Amino acid sequence: MALAYDPHFIGSENAETTSPSPLVLTQDELKKIAAYKAVEFVKSGMVVGLGTGSTSKHAVDRIGELLRQGILTDIVGIPTSKRTHEQALSLDIPLSDLETHPVLDLAIDGADEVDPDMNLVKGRGGSLLREKMIECVSKKFVVIVDESKLVDYIGGSGLAMPVEIVPFCWKFTAHMLQSLFQEADCVAKLRTLSENGEPYVTDNSNYIIDLYFKKDIGDLKSAGDAILRLPGVVEHGLFLGMATTLIVAGKLGVTVKNKS
Amino acid sequence: MALAYDPHFIGSENAETTSPSPLVLTQDELKKIAAYKAVEFVKSGMVVGLGTGSTSKHAVDRIGELLRQGILTDIVGIPTSKRTHEQALSLDIPLSDLETHPVLDLAIDGADEVDPDMNLVKGRGGSLLREKMIECVSKKFVVIVDESKLVDYIGGSGLAMPVEIVPFCWKFTAHMLQSLFQEADCVAKLRTLSENGEPYVTDNSNYIIDLYFKKDIGDLKSAGDAILRLPGVVEHGLFLGMATTLIVAGKLGVTVKNKS
Repeated sequence: MALAYDPHFIGSENAETTSPSPLVLTQDELKKIAAYKAVEFVKSGMVVGLGTGSTSKHAVDRIGELLRQGILTDIVGIPTSKRTHEQALSLDIPLSDLETHPVLDLAIDGADEVDPDMNLVKGRGGSLLREKMIECVSKKFVVIVDESKLVDYIGGSGLAMPVEIVPFCWKFTAHMLQSLFQEADCVAKLRTLSENGEPYVTDNSNYIIDLYFKKDIGDLKSAGDAILRLPGVVEHGLFLGMATTLIVAGKLGVTVKNKS
Repeated sequence: MALAYDPHFIGSENAETTSPSPLVLTQDELKKIAAYKAVEFVKSGMVVGLGTGSTSKHAVDRIGELLRQGILTDIVGIPTSKRTHEQALSLDIPLSDLETHPVLDLAIDGADEVDPDMNLVKGRGGSLLREKMIECVSKKFVVIVDESKLVDYIGGSGLAMPVEIVPFCWKFTAHMLQSLFQEADCVAKLRTLSENGEPYVTDNSNYIIDLYFKKDIGDLKSAGDAILRLPGVVEHGLFLGMATTLIVAGKLGVTVKNKS
């Protein structure tokens, strides 16, 4: 797709690009550039969803910095994971939750895959449920990625599409998930901890099944609904039609694309 | 509906009825009659899903009795809750789980509401998730109720339609659920323990939100999908198109209706 390799995908009025950078940047530096660009959308007084993961971490750091400098004031952060909660606390970002603030002005988060329609895969960091709860009630949802996350189609990276499930009979649910996508040659694997092989446990005390697809899974909305209809499934990592702005940091510059 | 009050709703080839009983029976006796009738479907060698609740309890007792008498042999029970697991253990019913037996021959369970199309509301007993996991992979699903459970439309009893949700920000999820059905004048209430007002916690460590509808919620499949799409929701108590046989014990007799 043009999106993946062309930093000038600004054919529409909804996109802009900065000048190409002459530097050779690491992936982490690219993430930081995208994150800092996203924080430009944060205005004083806003209720802001704070994402989880290596890219979002830079955004949260930046919000903390701007609060300390007095450039931003009156921010309320809604963290999408226990990890981000701790990071934000350490930065003295005032925090609240969805029950006090059921509508957010803005959320900023990374993604594991972004397709040309700005549909996302999220959850490789394990926080997909809380992220989705928070980001689906944000007026604006700014997604920040380095260009390696852009894919022609969801699943196209060959990396995992995560599904959060209840621990009860997890092997059975994994089997049902794999069967659901047998036409895409799906393989379902329980996410485990590298140190001891024990199941990874989410903030909600659930497990994660990582789905690997060899082929396109077709209509994403149908796929999402079919996953949710399996009893035992809590949530999936498809974030469809939610992103309102996409910020991509690439070796040739940063691009900002708004939902058309 | 004719179904509710006419024990002779046997217009089709798929239903039969016994002679009206001259006795006045209690609701619990009616439940027992339905349960015993259902156990007639159990044959030696079957893998059987064991339901949860006051009606199912009679069925599990009966299976235990027939095993003890040697009338049934080689039964494997798959319990739908910790409570039923304990009951079945106490009756020496051999038990297994979905991972060992991912397909069941038969499941027997009660329901809180049954509509004329044999769609169900289940989960007032709190075990809707495990019940759905097990009953959706049963070749036959025999539902046993007394006639008070028959409704013209789902929600029509005025009693709860339960939704299992993650505890995280449950007030927010309850609010989202209520909003989803505002046209049906829905009220969403957290299920609590009568003894101390603490949240009722399911076998999967989740909470239950009970939805009360004042009006028909319309298309049930759409309603179910909309509920599942709310992040924070684990499962709902609508069991659509799953029942294959309905056994209703009424004051005038027992009726058996098979899925057409």
